[in-house]
Amino acid sequence: MASQSVLTPQDQDFPRWYQDVVAKAELADNGPVRGTMVIRPYGYAIWERIQSEIDTRIKSAGAKNAYFPLFIPESYLSKEAEHVEGFSPELAVVTHAGGERLAEPIIVRPTSETVIGEFMAKWIQSYRDLPLLLNQWANVVRWELRPRLFLRSSEFLWQEGHTAHASHDDASTYAKKIQSEVYNDFLVNVLATPTYVGIKPPSERFAGAMNSMTCEGMMRDGKALQMATSHELGQNFAKAFDIFYQSEEGQAELCFTTSWGSSTRLVGGLIMAHGDDAGLIVPPRLAPVQVVVIVVRDEPDVTTAAETITKTLAAAGVRVELDNGRGSFGRRVTDWEIKGVPLRVEVGPRDLAQGLVTMVRRDSGEKLPRALAALASEVPALLETMQDDLFERALAHRNEHTHDVASITGALEAARDGFARLAWDLVEGDGERELNAEAVSVRCLQRRDGSMPASDEESDLVAYVAKSY
Amino acid sequence: MASQSVLTPQDQDFPRWYQDVVAKAELADNGPVRGTMVIRPYGYAIWERIQSEIDTRIKSAGAKNAYFPLFIPESYLSKEAEHVEGFSPELAVVTHAGGERLAEPIIVRPTSETVIGEFMAKWIQSYRDLPLLLNQWANVVRWELRPRLFLRSSEFLWQEGHTAHASHDDASTYAKKIQSEVYNDFLVNVLATPTYVGIKPPSERFAGAMNSMTCEGMMRDGKALQMATSHELGQNFAKAFDIFYQSEEGQAELCFTTSWGSSTRLVGGLIMAHGDDAGLIVPPRLAPVQVVVIVVRDEPDVTTAAETITKTLAAAGVRVELDNGRGSFGRRVTDWEIKGVPLRVEVGPRDLAQGLVTMVRRDSGEKLPRALAALASEVPALLETMQDDLFERALAHRNEHTHDVASITGALEAARDGFARLAWDLVEGDGERELNAEAVSVRCLQRRDGSMPASDEESDLVAYVAKSY
Repeated sequence: MASQSVLTPQDQDFPRWYQDVVAKAELADNGPVRGTMVIRPYGYAIWERIQSEIDTRIKSAGAKNAYFPLFIPESYLSKEAEHVEGFSPELAVVTHAGGERLAEPIIVRPTSETVIGEFMAKWIQSYRDLPLLLNQWANVVRWELRPRLFLRSSEFLWQEGHTAHASHDDASTYAKKIQSEVYNDFLVNVLATPTYVGIKPPSERFAGAMNSMTCEGMMRDGKALQMATSHELGQNFAKAFDIFYQSEEGQAELCFTTSWGSSTRLVGGLIMAHGDDAGLIVPPRLAPVQVVVIVVRDEPDVTTAAETITKTLAAAGVRVELDNGRGSFGRRVTDWEIKGVPLRVEVGPRDLAQGLVTMVRRDSGEKLPRALAALASEVPALLETMQDDLFERALAHRNEHTHDVASITGALEAARDGFARLAWDLVEGDGERELNAEAVSVRCLQRRDGSMPASDEESDLVAYVAKSY
Repeated sequence: MASQSVLTPQDQDFPRWYQDVVAKAELADNGPVRGTMVIRPYGYAIWERIQSEIDTRIKSAGAKNAYFPLFIPESYLSKEAEHVEGFSPELAVVTHAGGERLAEPIIVRPTSETVIGEFMAKWIQSYRDLPLLLNQWANVVRWELRPRLFLRSSEFLWQEGHTAHASHDDASTYAKKIQSEVYNDFLVNVLATPTYVGIKPPSERFAGAMNSMTCEGMMRDGKALQMATSHELGQNFAKAFDIFYQSEEGQAELCFTTSWGSSTRLVGGLIMAHGDDAGLIVPPRLAPVQVVVIVVRDEPDVTTAAETITKTLAAAGVRVELDNGRGSFGRRVTDWEIKGVPLRVEVGPRDLAQGLVTMVRRDSGEKLPRALAALASEVPALLETMQDDLFERALAHRNEHTHDVASITGALEAARDGFARLAWDLVEGDGERELNAEAVSVRCLQRRDGSMPASDEESDLVAYVAKSY
């Protein structure tokens, strides 16, 4: 690990550490309009990898990408009462366009539920058109008074899935499938973050939803981050937008709809789930740069060897970058550590004379001298080992910081540096209000065996409670 | 080709034919706010293929993707005088957000030149930071009074590249590299559209540019479509946004910047460059679905054979879809023809009894009976042949409809159903005004040998003039 860190240490000031990483790893900057964000090339490369992995899973689940307009007539939002209430304080409103005052103000989409509802009504005729499975990658706007890069920004990038089904069961099954096969699979197997998967209590549901499912991750400071959510909207939106289908029997029936989303927030989750005092640590399966081949001293033989290694690794399917750079070796090492590139291959004249290079793991700092000839076979295997180790490390941290408690007082105590797990019966109602007063919230509900309940009305549920981002 | 077309024939009413294709191929719909567009799944799948091909080329040219905010403070736009003048009638303005009236109105980006200029100034310190090569995939808004799906919409999707360089030559070389290695290479080798590549006359330059380069394609009705542009901005934006660098000698020097873009307009170009009376024709290298395997009659043996063929073709790297569909065979064939899927593999009981299937080319309508066993090797080769044939067909059409003329009268005559090529000396000044009065414009200027001039002040240039979208 880096000897002289340029970042605020985590245990000194975690929020400051986060800001430092975002800045020094060149992930993002604040935009000129309050709460907006400039995603810099390295941050965007990470987002592109997240997109690509999630998009592949969404397509495997049968949904198709489409694109709906940024601008929504103000009247659309008021069609679903809870929905408009949930969003109105966060809206950005266009009142002038094309040099004129508009007759009806336009909303910059905070989500596309309403406009997609309108088109579902148009496109769905009969049961043969169902299920209709749509997804969109887009920017959305929700005005933020206390913005924080990646975690809360007035504009953010996300995907929002919207589907319509003939029956409650079909909708419910699909919303769960997305939660487990798209989101949780990505979070566990690519982002290397263990999650608590459950349903939200009524107080935390999406505006207009009957049931909201969530994957909750634990950050290094013990707080929760909601990583992705999937909602059953029942027939609420179908009613508001007249989304009917003709059944096989020729009856007009209301559809059941779902929606589900994940966003650039996941970059914030990546930073806080794995980072240490030396910076970001990116899991190898996600990393846009998995290996940096770094020239210790800029001499012709060394540079040539480094170029050959880079080509060999690229040919072996590794995402690799060459640093034959200017500037001090120590400074370059620190920069790559801040960026969290999983593996560094150091190529120097002394090692090279013996046919060796030194591999350095970003996670453990371990130095591994290796024969040049072995790299192409060893690097991919080592990256997989590191992927597993990162998950195990995050899992151990999470388990250590999850405490079984039997009272609200115990939950508040546990929430100082982690999650509390307790009977939902103890929380529901007054308990939840007591927690909220201390900025602690119910992150999700599960059955005792860890499985997903059908609703919060099942008996014998457990609640995970924590402070959160 | 389709026997009973459901589309208005091209030579009866080309604009109506275009609208029909967009609707019946399920490419797009009008959004609820004037001029906005809903891109439906098939239209979006085409756009994703365009994106992927262009993005790969942009990355090969060394640019990195980033993301800048949707919202721009009004004051930014006025920093470059020509720029604000060029855009002001098209702007959408946010005046309220978070439940309050904003102190400074916010512009919804019509392009990101200004905000990117601001950040380039911040990120660029020394000559070591140059060139800075950025690209962004995003939505932009330019209010349209006469919207047309894909061709002119108030919101559209695009990529915009923005680069900063230490010298005029470096900037100029890079802008040309993008024009030829990214845009023209994509247009010719993937979209199968021949282009006239040249520079814009001063009257048609991008607001604030010193030189604008363009790839002009010819549509089936003889009109021009500007497919992609690349601009040399000289030091105009660098001056307006203080984009300086410290030279090797320690002097503060102004950068030279470029910008370049291509958009969802290319989907409109695809439709009009290749389509016929039966619908869209998508070049195989671009097509999201290259082959549809279509069951003639829904019988168990036939369906099983069709499934096997689909898997075999997918394994051979072909983008293939299975239609074992409901509804009449004829209707399904018509639908796939409207969607322009390059190759149809018809699987029916009679052919199958002899170990055969029938391949049908979308471009020529030619029917090719083939042995089942030969498909995996023959289909990829046939798709490549079709790609070449489509380009040749477009090239022949373009050459037939490009007329050398020696007067403005001749140019107006030629522009009725194609392009006129004439000496720029005959056009410059009064000639251009005469053409514009008849809705004919100068599309680009070239040297006599077809190469790109350095500026419109070179002598002995030729002008391509035409009506345009």
